[in-house]
Amino acid sequence: MSEKRSKADSQDKVTELAKRRGLFWTSFEIYGGVAGFYDFGPVGVLIKRNLVESWLRYFAYSNEWVVEIETPIINPRIVFKASGHEDHFTDPVVECTKCSRIYRADHLVKELTGINVEGWNIDDINRLIKEMGLNCPVCGGELSRVFNASLLFTSEIGPYKGERGYLRPELAQGMFINFPFVLKLTRNRLPLGIAQVGKVARNEISPRQGLLRLREFTIMEVEFFFDPEDLEEAYRAIEMIKDEVVRVVTESARRAGEEEASEFTVVELVEKNVVRTPWLAYWMGVGNKFVKSLGIPEDKIRFYEKLPHERAHYSAQTFDQEVYTSRYGWVEVAGYAYRTTYDLERHAEFSKADFTYFKRFETPVVMIVEKAYPNPVAIEKTLGREVLPKVMKSLAEIPAEELYKKLARDGHVEVEGFKLTSDHFYIKKEEVKIHGKKIVPHVVEPSFGLERLFYVLLEYAYAERDGKVVLKLPRHLAPYHVAVFPLVTGKKPEQQKIVGLSRRIYKDLLSAGFRVIYDEEGSIGRRYARVDEIGVPYAITVDYQSLEDDTVTVRDRDTAEQVRVRIENLREYLVEKFRESFPTFLI
Amino acid sequence: MSEKRSKADSQDKVTELAKRRGLFWTSFEIYGGVAGFYDFGPVGVLIKRNLVESWLRYFAYSNEWVVEIETPIINPRIVFKASGHEDHFTDPVVECTKCSRIYRADHLVKELTGINVEGWNIDDINRLIKEMGLNCPVCGGELSRVFNASLLFTSEIGPYKGERGYLRPELAQGMFINFPFVLKLTRNRLPLGIAQVGKVARNEISPRQGLLRLREFTIMEVEFFFDPEDLEEAYRAIEMIKDEVVRVVTESARRAGEEEASEFTVVELVEKNVVRTPWLAYWMGVGNKFVKSLGIPEDKIRFYEKLPHERAHYSAQTFDQEVYTSRYGWVEVAGYAYRTTYDLERHAEFSKADFTYFKRFETPVVMIVEKAYPNPVAIEKTLGREVLPKVMKSLAEIPAEELYKKLARDGHVEVEGFKLTSDHFYIKKEEVKIHGKKIVPHVVEPSFGLERLFYVLLEYAYAERDGKVVLKLPRHLAPYHVAVFPLVTGKKPEQQKIVGLSRRIYKDLLSAGFRVIYDEEGSIGRRYARVDEIGVPYAITVDYQSLEDDTVTVRDRDTAEQVRVRIENLREYLVEKFRESFPTFLI
Repeated sequence: MSEKRSKADSQDKVTELAKRRGLFWTSFEIYGGVAGFYDFGPVGVLIKRNLVESWLRYFAYSNEWVVEIETPIINPRIVFKASGHEDHFTDPVVECTKCSRIYRADHLVKELTGINVEGWNIDDINRLIKEMGLNCPVCGGELSRVFNASLLFTSEIGPYKGERGYLRPELAQGMFINFPFVLKLTRNRLPLGIAQVGKVARNEISPRQGLLRLREFTIMEVEFFFDPEDLEEAYRAIEMIKDEVVRVVTESARRAGEEEASEFTVVELVEKNVVRTPWLAYWMGVGNKFVKSLGIPEDKIRFYEKLPHERAHYSAQTFDQEVYTSRYGWVEVAGYAYRTTYDLERHAEFSKADFTYFKRFETPVVMIVEKAYPNPVAIEKTLGREVLPKVMKSLAEIPAEELYKKLARDGHVEVEGFKLTSDHFYIKKEEVKIHGKKIVPHVVEPSFGLERLFYVLLEYAYAERDGKVVLKLPRHLAPYHVAVFPLVTGKKPEQQKIVGLSRRIYKDLLSAGFRVIYDEEGSIGRRYARVDEIGVPYAITVDYQSLEDDTVTVRDRDTAEQVRVRIENLREYLVEKFRESFPTFLI
Repeated sequence: MSEKRSKADSQDKVTELAKRRGLFWTSFEIYGGVAGFYDFGPVGVLIKRNLVESWLRYFAYSNEWVVEIETPIINPRIVFKASGHEDHFTDPVVECTKCSRIYRADHLVKELTGINVEGWNIDDINRLIKEMGLNCPVCGGELSRVFNASLLFTSEIGPYKGERGYLRPELAQGMFINFPFVLKLTRNRLPLGIAQVGKVARNEISPRQGLLRLREFTIMEVEFFFDPEDLEEAYRAIEMIKDEVVRVVTESARRAGEEEASEFTVVELVEKNVVRTPWLAYWMGVGNKFVKSLGIPEDKIRFYEKLPHERAHYSAQTFDQEVYTSRYGWVEVAGYAYRTTYDLERHAEFSKADFTYFKRFETPVVMIVEKAYPNPVAIEKTLGREVLPKVMKSLAEIPAEELYKKLARDGHVEVEGFKLTSDHFYIKKEEVKIHGKKIVPHVVEPSFGLERLFYVLLEYAYAERDGKVVLKLPRHLAPYHVAVFPLVTGKKPEQQKIVGLSRRIYKDLLSAGFRVIYDEEGSIGRRYARVDEIGVPYAITVDYQSLEDDTVTVRDRDTAEQVRVRIENLREYLVEKFRESFPTFLI
């Protein structure tokens, strides 16, 4: 109990720090705010950028399969009609008939009764509300019948008499509709991953929970296309991270009432049939490594398999990757869905375009095919010279393979009103080479919510030392690499020299590509505290000794220890430190 | 004429290359496409990211004034009501009464008559259409009256009975409404720049011109807040880039019929009163340096001052930064607007929040103020003891300064029905210290269209050598840093060793943070050609000699020359090459 309370405190502290130091805050505050929208401030934006860069390294840059694209947020209606979102992307809503308050029905039932009705159909929720006599919790008024409200933001494309459009609620469709073209661009090879990082919009009913439930947010996602009959590359990929251990609450465990995660190596996920395709295991392994690289302890990460009624309409198997948070418990930061052929087939149906992959056989398959070729001499003998040209012309339009099949099936071929038997044909056996076949690739999708990752990153980086905040971000995610402080700032010549030298170091480090803070305001202790709070890993102080021996002190954020470094070696010193922290690549 | 034709060819070639190699293409092609939307492909996304990074270095990271934030695309209506966009962000539209085709009225008039009516009011356009008897160019039908259509994409926030919202048509309002908070975060200092990079949406009537006119695109922008009475920092800033020469077509030149640009140093822009504030000169200088760093020759860049009727409703002075393109002539890539106090004042009015900056005087201003304090003895003598408490209480509610003013103006002060004269008061002169005053900062806004920059970057990088495309991108903007090729790929032991070594080098360079292409398909010549086309600056080839002496060849994209480099020195070699290309910082 007391543990719970102290954890809740830490959540408050993160939010307080975020607001005070400009990491994030609710949008449109001067106009009273709008639920579900957050701004990112100067420090937050930099950390967010680093998260994106780091994700790209794990999921795109460090392998040979994944390329990145960027597609529009605004889409014509047909895209989300084909994807099924127009029909399925809804939440059950209920309205108070007295005060007109609107509630998400399943959340309201949960709040009032404790019963989890997520994924129930509407009639069942209605029955439950009636049977239990639930009313509006605010005014006590009667509730309307539950109905499904679309979570798609709608708009019109074209300023006058435009066409309906939707803001995308997920990135995936941008990758699906471009699959044929990107496949061609990447020289027709599977597996092929198409990544994207971008904004999406979901018109949630009444979002709360800060950064964890937003109406506009950023997704980082890969749609990974593969041939389910050719998994050689998948096993090679898994081999590269085979010792990675992931913690999973499987569907079968959940059905048995077990909510504790079990440990599996990536190989075991496949061998024990936890995953329905090895590519799911591979990406879960990569995702596990990635989330650990944010400084989240491995026992605070788990994969939680969804039950069929909890899954999105397109998914044959889904694991949520969750991180334990102080206030909200386990929170989803990523989803790993096995979308199979669902989306490609839907778009093929709606667009009539070809969404297949031509799977070339390593060696062509040789087949013996029987064919029948017309024998003009025999035909003329039976039907006479007059009709021969006409009959031959008609026969020429039918493939020889087809003629053979007709003869074999019916005993004759009928053309121009005449029945011809096998006596009128030469029958031949021929070898035919088949070079490949068309398949619709399967899809596995690892999809991350950037703002949620950002939040859990902060919660685990948050620490205190002597009552002061130290944000122990992994170095490569820090908003600034380094801060530069002159020890003193007075008007005396020596003090002026210290300021001058500090500014020179500041500019040199900027030019070398570092993000640098320069600060000369307040005591040196306060300046250290200010950069500790926003997670700057190193602080350089220029002091009197610097003027004598060309050295400065470099203070480490995490240990508060200082070492003296020669100014000319600063760049190299810092590069080395950051290289230590850079996540090792997967491949 | 022939020059024009050959230039148009180069535009076609860029578009062809873009499509063939996956830089960009029209969105939603499988569904017939939607005008004004483009996808960026694997190569395009990487170049785009580099452009953003480079812009941030020029405009944000390399100075001490600018911080970056991120705000939502979807905004509540009030934001764009306050900003004036709901009323002013429109285009004149005309509809054919017969075939219902919709036209942008000014474009139609230009097309049919050659007359430029941009910025004309609607009545004047209507009169012209009537007088000249203009009809629908497609069906000949009669045209409707011209009306203004809003270019804002509208939506509803909340899935059911939601509130109207708009997709932002510009980033600026996100910075304006956050100004008070960001000012506090950055410890109340001016100048303060707030930068943002993000998507915006404009519901254009019938966008054509590829990447140059989109309905959804990316802006990179700074709202730069400053005190117009304290320009010391502006002059210091200008001093740092004082020799930068910009080419400007001024408003007065245009009025005199002169369309040729004149050259000004940044200092001259101020001295010759070309700009209405020195900060405009500074940012134009920075913008000039930045656009040149993309490889655009300086004589293909100009600043084009807008006439009053061509300016947006919020701007007191605007310069478009234009780049010369083969097909469309001069194309705007950035705008530099002097938004003065317009936006802050509007939001102050609509939100009642405080958008001022407290300008602290260096030394408090001392003022002599005359005050009148009630003299109870004199008052009692005139009015009697009975009413004294009541009268004294009423007088206490009026500041002593105010009492003095009333006496000085009217000769008396009236309270509780009694007139009191100066005899009833002690008159005193007092010193008051004024520590500062509230001002509304002025704003200068440099704002870049990322997709337009991307397009002009490609047009100027496009080159051919021996009939093959070489995309001579500045090295730091290239999609990949380097490619790695094994010279041969056969099954013989030596060949296998070459492949193995190539893959090791590929992975080592990935781990070192480079973006690397590995390719073993086709002849080495074809592989060089493939990476030349997408602008990869260096290609490493592993050959038989590599197995003997641990060297590889490194080929330079621009010269096609090859040098042998020791494998262990590759990282250092490349780092050095890229450092040469990195734009020098401004400060």
